[in-house]
Amino acid sequence: MTVDTERSPGRRGRPGHSLDTLLAGAVAVFNERGYEATSMDEVATRLGVTKSALYHHVPSKGELLRLALDRALDALFAVTQETGATTGPAIDRLEYVVRGSVRVLAAELPFVTLLLRLRGNTEIERTALHRRREFDRIVTGLVRAAEHEGDVRADVDPAVLSRLLFGTVNSLTEWYRPGGDLSAADLADAVVAITFSGLRT
Amino acid sequence: MTVDTERSPGRRGRPGHSLDTLLAGAVAVFNERGYEATSMDEVATRLGVTKSALYHHVPSKGELLRLALDRALDALFAVTQETGATTGPAIDRLEYVVRGSVRVLAAELPFVTLLLRLRGNTEIERTALHRRREFDRIVTGLVRAAEHEGDVRADVDPAVLSRLLFGTVNSLTEWYRPGGDLSAADLADAVVAITFSGLRT
Repeated sequence: MTVDTERSPGRRGRPGHSLDTLLAGAVAVFNERGYEATSMDEVATRLGVTKSALYHHVPSKGELLRLALDRALDALFAVTQETGATTGPAIDRLEYVVRGSVRVLAAELPFVTLLLRLRGNTEIERTALHRRREFDRIVTGLVRAAEHEGDVRADVDPAVLSRLLFGTVNSLTEWYRPGGDLSAADLADAVVAITFSGLRT
Repeated sequence: MTVDTERSPGRRGRPGHSLDTLLAGAVAVFNERGYEATSMDEVATRLGVTKSALYHHVPSKGELLRLALDRALDALFAVTQETGATTGPAIDRLEYVVRGSVRVLAAELPFVTLLLRLRGNTEIERTALHRRREFDRIVTGLVRAAEHEGDVRADVDPAVLSRLLFGTVNSLTEWYRPGGDLSAADLADAVVAITFSGLRT
């Protein structure tokens, strides 16, 4: 691969092509071997670059992790700020966020996978988990609002319902692989069909 | 802890109290640090026994893994052989297997968690993943049968539906902790309510 040596570390906030490539490679190794078990030497070897080229782009392994986690989290939070998630009946906003999350998961699969496997052993991981919980609170708020509006069953606690709903969405990282027979849109339809209406006829 | 030195390795198939204790401790370390990253030294230290006492019970780390995975898998397969899973309409058998799986997950949480995090890097792991896929096939067969009987929606592929259903069940390992406000029976009710009938009123 070509490393863009003109891109200064100060522009890390808006990664160019080569940082994107580095990030994708690093996340692949993190997901295979675990973040903690992976050294910067291994990331460099996998990418076919020298360690100094790697350090030209990112000051530390933690920074690679932070950028990767932010990519997943920023995409998920962006969904919650779109019009479909902020206007209309809460049940429709909830459905919009579920569909948007499936879309993000399919588009950013390795990044979301990394996020969901976090254990919170470092400050960077704890910050990401904090953001994840904030996202969960938004979803639980929508479930609660939809229940108040009479559109969600009241026999299951909204927090439990929200966990089950996103448990289903998050479990997609375990088996869904983009590019196969099932498109992200069809997958979103299936998830919404089962979670909103159930598998019974 | 007390190590039962009278229990011979030949009786590993029916573990006594002390092997159960060793197993529970080992699985806790595996889940915290990852199976591959954990050494037998660390397992022994955690359990407060010497490494030779540990090796008196199990010949290898792999054998600890095998026993732990079999505990989860044997319990799940036992559910599929109970009367509720083998007689009656397929939709009822499916519900029985879902409830039974939630019960097993709550009762054997660390063992099921270990099973679900497997990546299949060793022969023992591959054997366990093979059994997991066999379990998945049983579930998919029930979904398919229930669809033929007209009780499950036909607009979602049975294999996808089965993955979504057990994605929901398996995701419980991420947040459910027995002994809290939510009993395993209430949890099973919530899971069946959402997955079979959906969250909509």
